[in-house]
Amino acid sequence: MSHSPASSELISLRQELAGIVGASHLREDLGPEHGAKLMALPASTEEVAALVQLCAARGVSIVPEGGGTGLVGGTLSQPGQLVISLTRMAKIEAIYPDERVAVVQAGVPLEVLQSAAALHGLEPGIDLPARGTATIGGMVSTNAGGIMAHRYGVMRHRVLGLEAVLPDGQIYSDLTRVVKNAAGYDLKHLFIGAEGTLGLVTRVVLKLEPLPAASATVLLGLPSFDAALQAINLAMKTEIGHLRGAEGLWQSYIRLTAQAHGWSEPSFPLDQPVNLLLMLGGGDEAALQGAIEGIFGSILEAYPSATGIIAASKRQEADLWRLREDTDVLYRTHKAAPSYDVSVPLSEIAGYVDHVTQGLAALDGGIKPYVFGHLADGNLHIVLDRTGPMAPGLTASVEEVLYAPLRALGGSFSAEHGVGSKRIGSLIATVDAGKLQMMTQLKRTLDPGNLLNPGKVLSLKS
Amino acid sequence: MSHSPASSELISLRQELAGIVGASHLREDLGPEHGAKLMALPASTEEVAALVQLCAARGVSIVPEGGGTGLVGGTLSQPGQLVISLTRMAKIEAIYPDERVAVVQAGVPLEVLQSAAALHGLEPGIDLPARGTATIGGMVSTNAGGIMAHRYGVMRHRVLGLEAVLPDGQIYSDLTRVVKNAAGYDLKHLFIGAEGTLGLVTRVVLKLEPLPAASATVLLGLPSFDAALQAINLAMKTEIGHLRGAEGLWQSYIRLTAQAHGWSEPSFPLDQPVNLLLMLGGGDEAALQGAIEGIFGSILEAYPSATGIIAASKRQEADLWRLREDTDVLYRTHKAAPSYDVSVPLSEIAGYVDHVTQGLAALDGGIKPYVFGHLADGNLHIVLDRTGPMAPGLTASVEEVLYAPLRALGGSFSAEHGVGSKRIGSLIATVDAGKLQMMTQLKRTLDPGNLLNPGKVLSLKS
Repeated sequence: MSHSPASSELISLRQELAGIVGASHLREDLGPEHGAKLMALPASTEEVAALVQLCAARGVSIVPEGGGTGLVGGTLSQPGQLVISLTRMAKIEAIYPDERVAVVQAGVPLEVLQSAAALHGLEPGIDLPARGTATIGGMVSTNAGGIMAHRYGVMRHRVLGLEAVLPDGQIYSDLTRVVKNAAGYDLKHLFIGAEGTLGLVTRVVLKLEPLPAASATVLLGLPSFDAALQAINLAMKTEIGHLRGAEGLWQSYIRLTAQAHGWSEPSFPLDQPVNLLLMLGGGDEAALQGAIEGIFGSILEAYPSATGIIAASKRQEADLWRLREDTDVLYRTHKAAPSYDVSVPLSEIAGYVDHVTQGLAALDGGIKPYVFGHLADGNLHIVLDRTGPMAPGLTASVEEVLYAPLRALGGSFSAEHGVGSKRIGSLIATVDAGKLQMMTQLKRTLDPGNLLNPGKVLSLKS
Repeated sequence: MSHSPASSELISLRQELAGIVGASHLREDLGPEHGAKLMALPASTEEVAALVQLCAARGVSIVPEGGGTGLVGGTLSQPGQLVISLTRMAKIEAIYPDERVAVVQAGVPLEVLQSAAALHGLEPGIDLPARGTATIGGMVSTNAGGIMAHRYGVMRHRVLGLEAVLPDGQIYSDLTRVVKNAAGYDLKHLFIGAEGTLGLVTRVVLKLEPLPAASATVLLGLPSFDAALQAINLAMKTEIGHLRGAEGLWQSYIRLTAQAHGWSEPSFPLDQPVNLLLMLGGGDEAALQGAIEGIFGSILEAYPSATGIIAASKRQEADLWRLREDTDVLYRTHKAAPSYDVSVPLSEIAGYVDHVTQGLAALDGGIKPYVFGHLADGNLHIVLDRTGPMAPGLTASVEEVLYAPLRALGGSFSAEHGVGSKRIGSLIATVDAGKLQMMTQLKRTLDPGNLLNPGKVLSLKS
């Protein structure tokens, strides 16, 4: 079976595709990011199923697309493939406030759901900078993470039920609205994080959480990672409110973003090795400020050289958070800078960052990493001070430095960005051979025609 | 391939089995609950793998066993099968306090892990009455639930990584210690809740949570389920501490257990339709008592007929909890009483309980249900006022009443007890046909010899 029929064949499909979604929901003028020349925008699960059935019958492979905010080439397409965009399926079907549950179509952007849930004093329990564009379906398919995973888990832990269209066009329906369900194998986890290779997620039932009315933020400058760990532990045990974010900014990263934003505070010299942005959420702003001051005070007692700024206003809080979230600064400074996304168990981070810093310094005249990330869950983003892409040999050496220790440490080479088409080699190099074999076996069993997002997550050489 | 070789064949295996685990760890005097005549008690993953390899070579099927606290016949065995008990693999291999992570062997009882974690001010985030006997491996294999699922999820949400022996004796190793892991399909979820039919879980990496130093409990007598829902919502949003348990006890249930324990309180007549046991946990007992009083006060304002008792001592707290946890009273009153375990979305519970009560009353002279359970997550336990087992026709009528509405409501016919051998028919009757087909496909692909716990979860008729 061929997955890249000649364009003329695909042209003959257009009428049938238009019959399913309507001619106005078929696009041919795809941007340069697409190799494919044709995109269908279905409005319902039934239309998705009909598209998949048609493609299955013609041997046309499918690339699903959500908000297009992925970072690992999970939606790259080729001529002859059909892109199916889920963005028209953007309805919030129900919010059950007493249950703290939402039922949404896959194309709903995160921020739209956040706003709708906020009307009920609730939130999705997951947040990330791409909130305006990233869709729930895409976040499910990539098992998105973000800044609250230490408390509410990753996307996988937020999903109570889902509906997906299978490779043969059948609809898998498990729209459970409860957290307890021991009724046989929990197959939804095969679709979550599979990047559209085993099914196209069309609807999702999500857990919501109470949205705190107030927040308080401190930026701490700390002499060591251990000091950051201690501050996180204090915040995890707060009696007032709860820890919402614990973002680490190593020295080189905060210096770069502070300079780009013209941010400076005389009381906060940027000379500490590690900086920690701690945010508490709760009901009473004054009480949260008091709790944040208490944490800062305890840290000062244990580490007299620590420094800190407590945000005195919402604007100052936003300024502090921009130092962390505006990662574009990196890529303006180093065009297409190579970027990595690893998970490291908290007890191992100090040693791991030392290992990486030294290992990269020894490469090719010395590479310096910008290190930042979600410290409470061990997710480090590491960006190199190089213009990308690097030469393949150097890339391999960098990956050896970054990835080789991770399995023994119980970490992961891909924390929250997925595998896509760009990190398959890294997956193969780092994953347990038994797991890789089982992944391949499942893909071949469930999608024998290799119809759904071929060449993503796995490379099937038969 | 036969899975029940004649006993003489199995006898010839004994020497080889003894060579793997040692003769003293092979048992033949199994209790009457076992159809099988032979049990091996391995001490390591490698021994488990060797046992599985041997059984695979001889076509002997395997029934894994943990603490033996299951309720749905998941460890029932037949002559000719080998029971593999994981109870000797009972080592807590590591606790990482800063990370809030434990690495344990499958045979560790929950209570042993609870005690070890408590030394670090931590807890496993899951608790259930069988804590003294239920093993972590068994709880993973059945995706156990318990009283804190509204906050910390079920067992599936507690597992960061696991190791399992596959049907061919290979070892699947994914001992990740991080919550963020987007490195390909997350296959550990195939083993969690699969009741040993796809692999034998040998080691588990678990998330831990801060253990609160204090608690406060109130028993509320309420005029309606909506009042209970309101109390739960207030407790979910408490600014002081957090909600640890929200257990519902409908009138017939609390009357029965109160009478059995000789419990009575003049200020708390047992004449309310619904009673709710609310527990908060946190750092300061007096503050928690104040918060509980605040919730009780708000409920009294909204529902003046409500009643309540706030536990004034640890002993009184234990007395209140015993009213909920001592379910043995039911089975002393009605021998082998038929028992059900459903999940219902919170917004639907009031209507569901009415439907069940009326539907059962219309059957065979009138059946009355005892209803109780974990209200914050919608898990209801329903026990009938009948000696069991009932006639098959009546059982079918009861299941029709209880299960028929659940799929449309987004509930589940099995919340936390699993499927085992006793509820396969109910699974088939209630589950999405596509899901059942996919479950069967996966079992056939991953365990083509039907070697691991055959006849559990699924009935494979070829």
